[in-house]
Amino acid sequence: MLNFSKPTVEQFLRTYVISDFAVSKDEDRIVFNTNLNGKMNLWAMDLPDTFPYLFAQKDQSANFIKFDPEGRYVLTGYDNDGDENYQIYALPSEGGMPEALITGEPNEKYYFTHLSDDGKRVYYVTSEGNPNFLNAKVRNLEDNSDTLLNEGESGPTYLSAVSEKEDVFVYMRLLANTYIQLFVKDGDSMTSLTPDAEKVHVASGPVFVGEKDIYFTTNFDQEYSYVAKYNLDSKEFETVFQIDNESIEGIKYDKENNYLYMTTEKGVEDVLYRYNLETQALETLSTPFDVVGKLVVTKAGNLYVLGRSATVPFNIYKSTTGNDWVSITNNRVLGVSQEEMVEPEVVTYKSFDDMEIEALLFRANPENDNGYTIFWPHGGPQASERKMFRAMFQSALNRGYTIFAPNFRGSTGYGSSFVKLVEQDWGHGPRLDCVAGIEWLFENNITKRDKLFLVGGSYGGYMALLLHGRHPEYFKAVVDIFGPSDLFTFVNSVPPHWKPMMERWVGDPERDKERFIKDSPITYLDTMVKPMLVIQGAKDPRVVKEESDQIVEKLKDLGRDVEYLVLEDEGHGFSKKENEIKVYNMMLEFLEKHQG
Amino acid sequence: MLNFSKPTVEQFLRTYVISDFAVSKDEDRIVFNTNLNGKMNLWAMDLPDTFPYLFAQKDQSANFIKFDPEGRYVLTGYDNDGDENYQIYALPSEGGMPEALITGEPNEKYYFTHLSDDGKRVYYVTSEGNPNFLNAKVRNLEDNSDTLLNEGESGPTYLSAVSEKEDVFVYMRLLANTYIQLFVKDGDSMTSLTPDAEKVHVASGPVFVGEKDIYFTTNFDQEYSYVAKYNLDSKEFETVFQIDNESIEGIKYDKENNYLYMTTEKGVEDVLYRYNLETQALETLSTPFDVVGKLVVTKAGNLYVLGRSATVPFNIYKSTTGNDWVSITNNRVLGVSQEEMVEPEVVTYKSFDDMEIEALLFRANPENDNGYTIFWPHGGPQASERKMFRAMFQSALNRGYTIFAPNFRGSTGYGSSFVKLVEQDWGHGPRLDCVAGIEWLFENNITKRDKLFLVGGSYGGYMALLLHGRHPEYFKAVVDIFGPSDLFTFVNSVPPHWKPMMERWVGDPERDKERFIKDSPITYLDTMVKPMLVIQGAKDPRVVKEESDQIVEKLKDLGRDVEYLVLEDEGHGFSKKENEIKVYNMMLEFLEKHQG
Repeated sequence: MLNFSKPTVEQFLRTYVISDFAVSKDEDRIVFNTNLNGKMNLWAMDLPDTFPYLFAQKDQSANFIKFDPEGRYVLTGYDNDGDENYQIYALPSEGGMPEALITGEPNEKYYFTHLSDDGKRVYYVTSEGNPNFLNAKVRNLEDNSDTLLNEGESGPTYLSAVSEKEDVFVYMRLLANTYIQLFVKDGDSMTSLTPDAEKVHVASGPVFVGEKDIYFTTNFDQEYSYVAKYNLDSKEFETVFQIDNESIEGIKYDKENNYLYMTTEKGVEDVLYRYNLETQALETLSTPFDVVGKLVVTKAGNLYVLGRSATVPFNIYKSTTGNDWVSITNNRVLGVSQEEMVEPEVVTYKSFDDMEIEALLFRANPENDNGYTIFWPHGGPQASERKMFRAMFQSALNRGYTIFAPNFRGSTGYGSSFVKLVEQDWGHGPRLDCVAGIEWLFENNITKRDKLFLVGGSYGGYMALLLHGRHPEYFKAVVDIFGPSDLFTFVNSVPPHWKPMMERWVGDPERDKERFIKDSPITYLDTMVKPMLVIQGAKDPRVVKEESDQIVEKLKDLGRDVEYLVLEDEGHGFSKKENEIKVYNMMLEFLEKHQG
Repeated sequence: MLNFSKPTVEQFLRTYVISDFAVSKDEDRIVFNTNLNGKMNLWAMDLPDTFPYLFAQKDQSANFIKFDPEGRYVLTGYDNDGDENYQIYALPSEGGMPEALITGEPNEKYYFTHLSDDGKRVYYVTSEGNPNFLNAKVRNLEDNSDTLLNEGESGPTYLSAVSEKEDVFVYMRLLANTYIQLFVKDGDSMTSLTPDAEKVHVASGPVFVGEKDIYFTTNFDQEYSYVAKYNLDSKEFETVFQIDNESIEGIKYDKENNYLYMTTEKGVEDVLYRYNLETQALETLSTPFDVVGKLVVTKAGNLYVLGRSATVPFNIYKSTTGNDWVSITNNRVLGVSQEEMVEPEVVTYKSFDDMEIEALLFRANPENDNGYTIFWPHGGPQASERKMFRAMFQSALNRGYTIFAPNFRGSTGYGSSFVKLVEQDWGHGPRLDCVAGIEWLFENNITKRDKLFLVGGSYGGYMALLLHGRHPEYFKAVVDIFGPSDLFTFVNSVPPHWKPMMERWVGDPERDKERFIKDSPITYLDTMVKPMLVIQGAKDPRVVKEESDQIVEKLKDLGRDVEYLVLEDEGHGFSKKENEIKVYNMMLEFLEKHQG
């Protein structure tokens, strides 16, 4: 009787982000970080009632939420408009306005690590006094005193775990995304949890099980991370178990039942497992989400997960058995059912050197199809494109674009050798994987040669710029979202605690000068002739605004068609709903304009 | 261990408005109108789950919500930034973007009245073609045709009820707030539901009970409204029942149980009653709210109420028995418990002519008390100050102000003679009631003579201006929120369909010229010497912007201390969270500045 129009772009963008949550000791309250009211704030639900109420007003992103076990307060951390200089705040137990607890100059960082069981001591790491490597400290809330626990050296060093008696500490030293050491500090001595700290490997997520065992995940001597343990008495390292071709991450210990819970990164999705420490039985749990943002195991053994999938945005799910999941939030796309959206196909293709590359292919529904494809190189680069809701993807799909997102070499989820292939090779192998992906699209008649757009953010923005400069013939137009434009300036402008990792990750500007020139998009200004849209957050601490400024200025000087949008109150991402809507509307308008 | 600061003003202002709601036929969905995400939009809950999701994005206030009984769509109405020109929109049943259904030029109004049981015919009234008196029409959704049902005459005429067979119609003609006629239209003849339409009285809220009875409330020949019925066959009017000193409003019929539900306005609060049509037993229901915004009785006999009280903002409550209320929303003040807020005392005092005036006295808690009092004449004027949450009140109380709000003559809830006392006497009796209230505050040592502020909105803004002009010695400073400044210009600038009521309500500018001069604030410019803050919505259709412009301009010309804030995207109220915060922060800063 009444006919309604097709969904608009705005409908897809009216979903909200949930970036973190915490569950109170008795599971009667959940506090979560969301832009439900347009900007990031903490909201709460008093379970079993799920109607949310505002819990803290700050209009900033929180990087953690921690309940005082005694119920006197809640701790959280805020940065300032995306600058990632997080500092620690406290809130009254019933919510209210956040008050500074462990803070300092605006450019200093204070990262929460641990709260003692009696809620009286806050363990944290800070850039204050050690901007490159970080110091670990404990704040005694009773007398407001700080005690220095550890001075980081040779790499940013994070306090990762504190024993129940607060006498043993585990530190994580980040030398690269592919080289992370774990040390136990007992008195003054630092002992590696793996057999050889000098061998390149990743170790993370330490968990104390009982008095003497530390469980963690590591890929030491293996392609995929497995569960290992270290015994404090015997000082022995031991493999607990591994799963073929899946990288285990994020162990949680269920003391009540003596279980370990963990997720594995299986290519483009996560799998949730339960491991019985007594019987050594490993069980795969079935879940209604494809990607796990956070897993919480409560004292009573209940599970809470921040999950999402390609067609369902962030929601918090609860389960008592591990298989009976209920969504306790209701974040959905306004007026669009899951069925009307597009689930990606997982495809593989062969690259220039016969290496197999996995990719997500979102095919526009036939009734929407406009014949154009968006090629999307993901950010990271040591990350991957996965089955997770992106409002931008689903709204572009609804407009009729097909989207192709390859997990080029350097992506996570395909083993440690694969992920290292982007290190000191930002611009060659991964770029040729993208080129092979583009040719595969043409060969398989998914895309016509004159119907391809290029859009990427962060490393994906860098790749978009580089592909534009070196292969302009492929693309109708290009969108770069905060991508580095010049490797020389980029390696010098990252935050201080990133600097120790830059040599292994990107390279050395002196030693690798020629490669830096060859792999910097700015080298190819002459051939960047296609229309371009560049988007940048003014407060971005990872890829600073100058990275976009310089290439935009140079291209404009050459008379090229470049639109430039700077968001004054954003960092490396868009946390404010109105900004997000502005950016994606502008982007879709830009693509539309350059069709035909 | 950790000490937190006292609540800030912003915390009180972070509550949201719920202005309306509807319940689906099977009670599995509630759609409600709220500024939860900062601007007014429709949200939904799929019961029993109470986590809300965005149901329609428009960023405008909706004036009604109606589910298609067959579940194919939802109807709603929007105006434009508070201009009150509501027009009718449709939404897909699962939510989405509103699409125009019954709309016209931006200055026309289309008010929804009724949807047929099969969801195919929409009954409405419109200003189109009859701006003063309105026409009633029906839109057939199957062929998109409109049929004229009635042309309003001699007063704005609203279609109020439609019989089940859609063959009998009840019309309400609004001649004044105190003179409202009900007619049944059967064929072409209009018959008054009360014995004498020419006698001044109020009749409203007609409800069809069975085929032949129309129940409604009226104060015909009485001080307080009671329940009456009219039989279509016998054409007889009959009193059903009345409640001493309480005005009955808003009858709802529970067909399943043959009950009538209704609220009464008992001075500063509402009481909810259930009346058994069979046994004629009347039962008072106990509720957790003091003021009823809307009452819905479902087919199954369940009750839903939009309720609030002085210390609890708008929430939707559900009850199955009438006494077992559960709040299904969780709108609360950020981090402030009900106990920390102030419940008003109900006080009475004698006015200049010995008439008794009831007032709400909010005493600042001793630990906050700053010694100052805000005198608040309410708007309307034919309304009253009641026990309902006002963020502005509770935040001012928290800053230490005591608040006094008298229900001067002309207020509702005290009988029909009392409410008429403001008619054609806007500036004398009610003003002297305010003066007597002020003297009562001094006599009872609640307020010191040099510690009084004056704040009012709408008619209360008018009264604030008039009290300022005629009794400046009382006040330290004055805040006027969209108050008429000149009765001559005011009576000519109201919306067309208000004009027929102006003579009885305010008077005639020719006949009452002298009184208009005496009662217009603008007459007293010479004595308006105290600092003033004036706030006005640019789209206000009731008190147009010129009312504020003219007095601000004239006072500024005289060199007076006047601050003026115009909100471009608001009408007669503040629907946008950021505007509300701006206004009340500005107001509290203004008061603070003028202390001492």
